[in-house]
Amino acid sequence: MLIKQFGLAVRQLREGRGWSQERLAEAADLNRSFIGEIERGAATPSLLTVEKLAHALGIGLAGLLARCEPELID
Amino acid sequence: MLIKQFGLAVRQLREGRGWSQERLAEAADLNRSFIGEIERGAATPSLLTVEKLAHALGIGLAGLLARCEPELID
Repeated sequence: MLIKQFGLAVRQLREGRGWSQERLAEAADLNRSFIGEIERGAATPSLLTVEKLAHALGIGLAGLLARCEPELID
Repeated sequence: MLIKQFGLAVRQLREGRGWSQERLAEAADLNRSFIGEIERGAATPSLLTVEKLAHALGIGLAGLLARCEPELID
């Protein structure tokens, strides 16, 4: 399911940078608990939240979402 | 702004297929007026709505979003 895959992708990218959820929340101007929910696939982000996360993680929107659909890469 | 660019991308893809907003709404299982708002950049879609639109338009998520950030392609 996309939301779970998206959460996993965000977690992998965050941990790849050695960041805490607090650090990512600060960089993305989002709430720390919301980051936790997104990573668990328990919250559906808006396109603007996806953009904030991609920007904070230093990856393009398409690049971040490509990680959620490896087999559907367009 | 991302939301405006996303709306434009959806409209271009829809019109490229010769579809009406009704046709896209039906294919994406979304409300016709919501499609209009999205295309005008007046509504912020969730990631699941983005997925529904990409699927209905026969394009991958990353492919659809790459159209919104030509200069930021990852």
